[in-house]
Amino acid sequence: MVASAAVRLFGMWASPAVRRVEWALKLKGIEYEYIEEDLSNKSSSLLEFNPINKQVPVLVHNCNPIVESLVILEYIDETWKENPILPVDPLERAKARFWATFVDVKCREESRKAFFMEGEEKEKAIENLQVQLKALDEELEGKKFFSGDHIGYTDLAVGWMAFWLGVAEEAAGFKANYDVKFPNFSRWMKDFLAEPVIKDNLPPREKTVEFFRAFKQLGSCTKVNQK
Amino acid sequence: MVASAAVRLFGMWASPAVRRVEWALKLKGIEYEYIEEDLSNKSSSLLEFNPINKQVPVLVHNCNPIVESLVILEYIDETWKENPILPVDPLERAKARFWATFVDVKCREESRKAFFMEGEEKEKAIENLQVQLKALDEELEGKKFFSGDHIGYTDLAVGWMAFWLGVAEEAAGFKANYDVKFPNFSRWMKDFLAEPVIKDNLPPREKTVEFFRAFKQLGSCTKVNQK
Repeated sequence: MVASAAVRLFGMWASPAVRRVEWALKLKGIEYEYIEEDLSNKSSSLLEFNPINKQVPVLVHNCNPIVESLVILEYIDETWKENPILPVDPLERAKARFWATFVDVKCREESRKAFFMEGEEKEKAIENLQVQLKALDEELEGKKFFSGDHIGYTDLAVGWMAFWLGVAEEAAGFKANYDVKFPNFSRWMKDFLAEPVIKDNLPPREKTVEFFRAFKQLGSCTKVNQK
Repeated sequence: MVASAAVRLFGMWASPAVRRVEWALKLKGIEYEYIEEDLSNKSSSLLEFNPINKQVPVLVHNCNPIVESLVILEYIDETWKENPILPVDPLERAKARFWATFVDVKCREESRKAFFMEGEEKEKAIENLQVQLKALDEELEGKKFFSGDHIGYTDLAVGWMAFWLGVAEEAAGFKANYDVKFPNFSRWMKDFLAEPVIKDNLPPREKTVEFFRAFKQLGSCTKVNQK
């Protein structure tokens, strides 16, 4: 492990965006202190370090806060060079960033709607999500991971879908049918979750389903939108 | 100018995301061929180069397409090193990316609502937008540009607000009152628009207002969401 007691991560156990950062830290072998936040009663430290978004994750490195999970991944890759997660070639980097944005903005929006909405809006969101999953499935044709043979930036960005999409389906009662319709994506989900660094850094599934079930009943989008 | 006849940009004259890319290309002194798209009748080239989003801007470099305006800015900065637009320090880079995401996702969403919605929803969006403008105003305290003395990545990312926010206000009949409430931001808008590379690469204001007025009447969000 790299000596980095100066690294702290403010998180919340059920948050996919927080796990994304933890996965990157673990892949890099960076030691860090994890601070669990109660999002219904945010700490003064969280509010001080992230006064604009007031959300987790926040990475604090040598007292400097870094906010937004994809921004944090780039920071980690630029600060600790070992085990790079982004490719070197500008074109490959652009592709990785394109997929990260695609998943973080577009897939998340349709997943959120499929999770919270009902009736026609839910059906439309599932339909849109399946179009997006098809694009991801095609991108994975002939590749183990998005980034090649090893987990990289794109896998970390898409990674929440491997675990939380199934959780959301169970908690909110919908089916995106990725296992039937999108064989490459479905296989990637299994491969991704089987990687030790991922497998050992996931929240307990049943507890997470219960959390999201309660969250849906709350009928609010405010907390799931942490990133 | 750098010799780069191999650079093409697919755009649409009224699109803020396309201008963002043009500003970066001009700042770098990169020659490019500009191809105007009719978004109601997209060219086969656009659909081939951007089959997933089917939107502009698309930068094509040596026949390779790069999509999403912020991703394109990073690609441009990594490919042509002269006149860097992103800072060198990882922490400063993270700050620049944070503001870019903030403006591209959060401010754009509230601006979109202020533009398209009416009544209570419009008022709420303007209120949220003003909270966001306050954050930008505070960030500009004591600085000419977000990136310091010269226009950089953050300025290019926030740049659409300097021109299109006023256009949207006029086309949709709302006032964010930035000139009264946010003096740093208001001053930045003027300074940004006064820079030759920006001033000489803006669409005609009245024509743009007319375009957005018609666009609002269309009542659709599909076209303004190009990025």
